[in-house]
Amino acid sequence: MLRSSLLRVIRTPQALRAYSTQAGLPDIDASKLTITRTQTPKALKKPEDLIFGRNFTGIPAFPTTKSMNKTYDHMLSIEWTARSGWAAPRIIPYQNLSLDPATCVFHYGFECFEGMKAYRSNVNGKPSIRIFRPHNNMRRLNKSSVRIALPAFSVEEMTKCLATFVNLEQRFIPDKRGYSLYLRPTMIGTQSTLGVGSPGSALLFVIASPVGPYYPTGFKAVSLEATSRYIRAWPGGVGDMKLGGNYAPCIVPQLDAASRGFHQNLWLFGEEGYVTEVGTMNLFTAWITPEGRKEIVTAPLDGTILEGITRDCILALAREHLTKEGWEVSERKFTIGEMAKAADEGRLVEAFGSGTAAVVSPIRRIAWDGGIGGTPRDIMIPLQEGKEAGALAERLWKWMEERQYGDVESEWRLVSPTHPSSTLTR
Amino acid sequence: MLRSSLLRVIRTPQALRAYSTQAGLPDIDASKLTITRTQTPKALKKPEDLIFGRNFTGIPAFPTTKSMNKTYDHMLSIEWTARSGWAAPRIIPYQNLSLDPATCVFHYGFECFEGMKAYRSNVNGKPSIRIFRPHNNMRRLNKSSVRIALPAFSVEEMTKCLATFVNLEQRFIPDKRGYSLYLRPTMIGTQSTLGVGSPGSALLFVIASPVGPYYPTGFKAVSLEATSRYIRAWPGGVGDMKLGGNYAPCIVPQLDAASRGFHQNLWLFGEEGYVTEVGTMNLFTAWITPEGRKEIVTAPLDGTILEGITRDCILALAREHLTKEGWEVSERKFTIGEMAKAADEGRLVEAFGSGTAAVVSPIRRIAWDGGIGGTPRDIMIPLQEGKEAGALAERLWKWMEERQYGDVESEWRLVSPTHPSSTLTR
Repeated sequence: MLRSSLLRVIRTPQALRAYSTQAGLPDIDASKLTITRTQTPKALKKPEDLIFGRNFTGIPAFPTTKSMNKTYDHMLSIEWTARSGWAAPRIIPYQNLSLDPATCVFHYGFECFEGMKAYRSNVNGKPSIRIFRPHNNMRRLNKSSVRIALPAFSVEEMTKCLATFVNLEQRFIPDKRGYSLYLRPTMIGTQSTLGVGSPGSALLFVIASPVGPYYPTGFKAVSLEATSRYIRAWPGGVGDMKLGGNYAPCIVPQLDAASRGFHQNLWLFGEEGYVTEVGTMNLFTAWITPEGRKEIVTAPLDGTILEGITRDCILALAREHLTKEGWEVSERKFTIGEMAKAADEGRLVEAFGSGTAAVVSPIRRIAWDGGIGGTPRDIMIPLQEGKEAGALAERLWKWMEERQYGDVESEWRLVSPTHPSSTLTR
Repeated sequence: MLRSSLLRVIRTPQALRAYSTQAGLPDIDASKLTITRTQTPKALKKPEDLIFGRNFTGIPAFPTTKSMNKTYDHMLSIEWTARSGWAAPRIIPYQNLSLDPATCVFHYGFECFEGMKAYRSNVNGKPSIRIFRPHNNMRRLNKSSVRIALPAFSVEEMTKCLATFVNLEQRFIPDKRGYSLYLRPTMIGTQSTLGVGSPGSALLFVIASPVGPYYPTGFKAVSLEATSRYIRAWPGGVGDMKLGGNYAPCIVPQLDAASRGFHQNLWLFGEEGYVTEVGTMNLFTAWITPEGRKEIVTAPLDGTILEGITRDCILALAREHLTKEGWEVSERKFTIGEMAKAADEGRLVEAFGSGTAAVVSPIRRIAWDGGIGGTPRDIMIPLQEGKEAGALAERLWKWMEERQYGDVESEWRLVSPTHPSSTLTR
């Protein structure tokens, strides 16, 4: 029993906000944003040099941002203190942070972040910059920050600041399909006393980096190793928050899986072997249920998985397009054993990960120890003949891309005007 | 079932060391330590100003280091890279760290630390500085660091560097009982790329601060609130490691408890209501079992509690001195329900926390929601007549202090010669 009613109470940002912001103190105010331009603008790299380098460090997993090029000029920086609230937002030249070694971010994990992208759209000769679902990322950042006693902020105002920042940096977004500007909003506690308590000061900053396509030459289906000896998250914990502390402990399990030739690990939970998420992605399975129904299923938001924004998009797109083809779309618990049984009985249709980096990442194989008392085995997942993706993954990825680049209009974007002085030549 | 055999495998630092250090690369070498003295030595504060300020921020809990005074002159700094191993250790003037905002410590929680103390001893006219059990802290730091893919190091060499550092800073240790120099060894990942992977560079630094006695006017027994809606740690997780990411999520639960008037929260685990640890301390209970045996019990090292070095001392002292008085000393699981029943039946003798800050922290009351389907209630814990501590807590604390200050010789210390130029006057 997960005591879900209690958990729900504490997961409400509003309920926690009181810890983090004091009534009457200034919130983030986009109208106060100042811009100090760099005196040394960087040269642009060729788009081809931005292609995701999956073997950059010899570790095939987590390629999200491995090839990021620090060619950015500026950063967005907003300071907060418990006494004075949020200061005026500033766009400043990209620069090092100078922090006392006693600063709480170094000691107690007062840090949370977001990963999101801005795309250059050029539909019917109308150029624009589109930030994909920024309000969702800012809402999630708020949720993460208040859970660790860092301050909340206005989603609307922060998104405006973000848009101004992206607009200023738009020359870094190549005008080529598959490219985008990766944005990394980050909040850290900056109080420099070693007492374990609510930080009295914080810094919210955003850095950005152009990134190339995850699959420059088409999908590459990945092999996963199901992990049960390490547990990433648990009910009543913080596995659904984008906190720094959730990531460092995942590296050794990931290196473990990589040492045996797997691209990523798949996090299981409990003796039942519940499927939770993949490395840093959510996981979707498509199968025919034992009762003969077509179902696309992903783990529910029970506090043990990250509330992926791409996950949310995939669910919405599947409900929009696939239910009319007879697919049920479910958020519910399911086990690795059920996946194995479905594979054995020819009922497993597809499995794929979803996340900001790859958007959709088809899976070809999952190695599983068979559970308690079980026998190790491989679960083989069908792909299309001669392709590295299943048909559903391919279609969902295409529907996502159409919305990212504006081929199909949707509410999932904040459109920025392109900068008049921005040149797309290089 | 905790699959403890599997967990044991991955908790071995030796097994993980391969991830973090490459054979043939330099380890920490104390003989290469260089010292760059500050040109602006700080004035000493009066010892009285170092008393633990328990209401410093209005939050009564976690007072460990709240009143720390940054009067230190120097820091110990050792850089590591995956390519070159550990660089020569350096003692340098205390200074800010200048880090790229993309540095992995800000994003993914690549940070672990230790808390430990050095004492000034003056027994029979023989002055010395005693670092309490430094090898234990350095072993634990190694264990934490390799769990998050940060490098391992030689405990022996690092302890030598630490001793040199303490020796240089010894003028900050007041020559008064109850005072000490708090040491904070910290390791952070310093690679500045946003890819989630094994950090290619790290910094191990040590800062120090003089601290006063936790109970300047005698023990103050604390009230705890048992917490079950938030879960601090889980089998297969990293709750037994001193990682930054374990601390930030504890603040909101702590503020929750404080808002209802409690000093700290007590972490429960599972529907059974297992007692794990208190805020940032381990917990000991002394009771008469239902069978009539005298037992001092604390939770076992099953991966869900921090492996406290003070906990280890308390266990050793209890085994040395109290078993001959008929006390059994146990490391085993026990529940909050058993504590409540013992209180009701007059069998509860004492309960106290143990940790570096307070050493021993007597408990007077635990508020508990009664568990699933139960009724909220208070568990009252006996104290001595007219005192704020039980007799066992008082004696254990005294035995600890005698060893910290060298009244009783033990192996639990590294003795440093006092610095010839160090003056104890102020």
